[in-house]
Amino acid sequence: MDAGRLAIVGLGLIGSSIARAVRARLPGVVVTGHDASAEVRAEARSLGLCDHIADDPAMAVTDADLVILAVPVGRMADAAHMIAPGLGADAIISDVGSSKAGVGAALRAALPGHVIIPAHPVAGTENSGPAAGFATLFEGRWCIITPEADASRGAVDRLAGFWQALGARVETMDAAHHDMVLAVTSHLPHLIAYTIVGTASELEEVTESEVIKYSAGGFRDFTRIAASDPVMWRDVFLANKDAVLATLQRFNEDLTALQQAIRRGDGGKLEDWFTRTRAIRRSIIEQGQDDAAPDFGRKH
Amino acid sequence: MDAGRLAIVGLGLIGSSIARAVRARLPGVVVTGHDASAEVRAEARSLGLCDHIADDPAMAVTDADLVILAVPVGRMADAAHMIAPGLGADAIISDVGSSKAGVGAALRAALPGHVIIPAHPVAGTENSGPAAGFATLFEGRWCIITPEADASRGAVDRLAGFWQALGARVETMDAAHHDMVLAVTSHLPHLIAYTIVGTASELEEVTESEVIKYSAGGFRDFTRIAASDPVMWRDVFLANKDAVLATLQRFNEDLTALQQAIRRGDGGKLEDWFTRTRAIRRSIIEQGQDDAAPDFGRKH
Repeated sequence: MDAGRLAIVGLGLIGSSIARAVRARLPGVVVTGHDASAEVRAEARSLGLCDHIADDPAMAVTDADLVILAVPVGRMADAAHMIAPGLGADAIISDVGSSKAGVGAALRAALPGHVIIPAHPVAGTENSGPAAGFATLFEGRWCIITPEADASRGAVDRLAGFWQALGARVETMDAAHHDMVLAVTSHLPHLIAYTIVGTASELEEVTESEVIKYSAGGFRDFTRIAASDPVMWRDVFLANKDAVLATLQRFNEDLTALQQAIRRGDGGKLEDWFTRTRAIRRSIIEQGQDDAAPDFGRKH
Repeated sequence: MDAGRLAIVGLGLIGSSIARAVRARLPGVVVTGHDASAEVRAEARSLGLCDHIADDPAMAVTDADLVILAVPVGRMADAAHMIAPGLGADAIISDVGSSKAGVGAALRAALPGHVIIPAHPVAGTENSGPAAGFATLFEGRWCIITPEADASRGAVDRLAGFWQALGARVETMDAAHHDMVLAVTSHLPHLIAYTIVGTASELEEVTESEVIKYSAGGFRDFTRIAASDPVMWRDVFLANKDAVLATLQRFNEDLTALQQAIRRGDGGKLEDWFTRTRAIRRSIIEQGQDDAAPDFGRKH
């Protein structure tokens, strides 16, 4: 991708961040963007995100060497069908979805004979839309590529090189394993955060205004990810149902055990558990996936 | 407290932050500190946190106008007994515990005839110990005061003025209501975070190193509060058992409903729920209890 043609289909947070990162780090690449929403296309034009914005998805991918689908995972199959008429035979088709086994199967079914290399940059914020993206979103973050066993080695390397050029670190794994890893590190945390924010806002004993007022005691940490895009997350849970439900069951078992310890007044069990979880936090900071600044880097 | 004598018993994150905030904002106040740990006292001396560090708790509170107990809630009764011989008749005794009904009762039982005004500054970080404190910790945060119905109005006003002088906003409420509000906004979020971090670190299918590596997908947001002081939190859950278990039951009901929606493929229910929770986040940011910066204010 030192020089070449990139098409981005879907210009929300991730798609627009790719466009910005390419402009900053791969100035030789010509970027064409498309979004199903006319409003988003107009916003992308006024932001100057891409070299061209195409109104037609098939036109957007004509001559592209690399096509990245950055739409909710439930819309990947539709997006693939829409671009099919414009795709060149050698184009690499990739995506950014948070679940990979289902998306890979959908893309292969929609685009038989094409070079399909699914990928997932593990990065994001709770904000949505083309204005929310930024060029440094992928810096220091992992991008997981999940090729089929018989995928072209050259195509995988090319996609890996593209993400590395945007500042990401690249890992390759089996799609099923990806889906289990992300169920734990991303999908279950989002489900839990969505649940607790909803629970807190509907209690009779405590008003919503009290919940907001005293959120600095811990609650606010959950609200960030519970503000993420509702459609994107609806699709993730439906697409990665089995892995999400499996990890949720494990979570429920552990929560029941801690609940029992509280009810029984078993302070030793609580203290042991809470001591163990401290070490995980330390490792995350050491590996640069978070910041140790007091109060989470927030300024008041 | 324009001029006066303050005693702080317990020099961890909160106690040492009070000492620092008093030095910065109430330079006329003389501060004496004590901690049960000789190691912490030595660290407090070398940090120069207080005007005096007393080795004996009763000596620490002699002549104090205001005594603040900043120890884990399970140690409040012991700390009260230890300071009792040194307390003046007019001293106001307060605390900073995360649960209030039990702490208030324990202090009243340990110090009959004394002026006891429990309080809870809703502020903190995941770090512990005297070196972790900082002078601005309470700025813009709420301090909840939970006096008994027959408490001295003058003493309540004096304590409120003290916390306002440190930059906090003050609210007064009934201890039982405080405990329900904090169960929702602080205790349940900590319990959930502790649980999921433990769950994620013990799955067979996903290694701990993978959990850490891909934590930017949402998991890392939970690890911050799951790194909080284990003894402090053990005591909070034991002291506020009833309110925590009541809110946990509501959370479990909601989680089961969302689990069922995922299993059944009910995307409408998921999307509705996730849309509602977005609004809560917006209100928290509007009220200055969190920061809207992309990627949560983290730098990489």
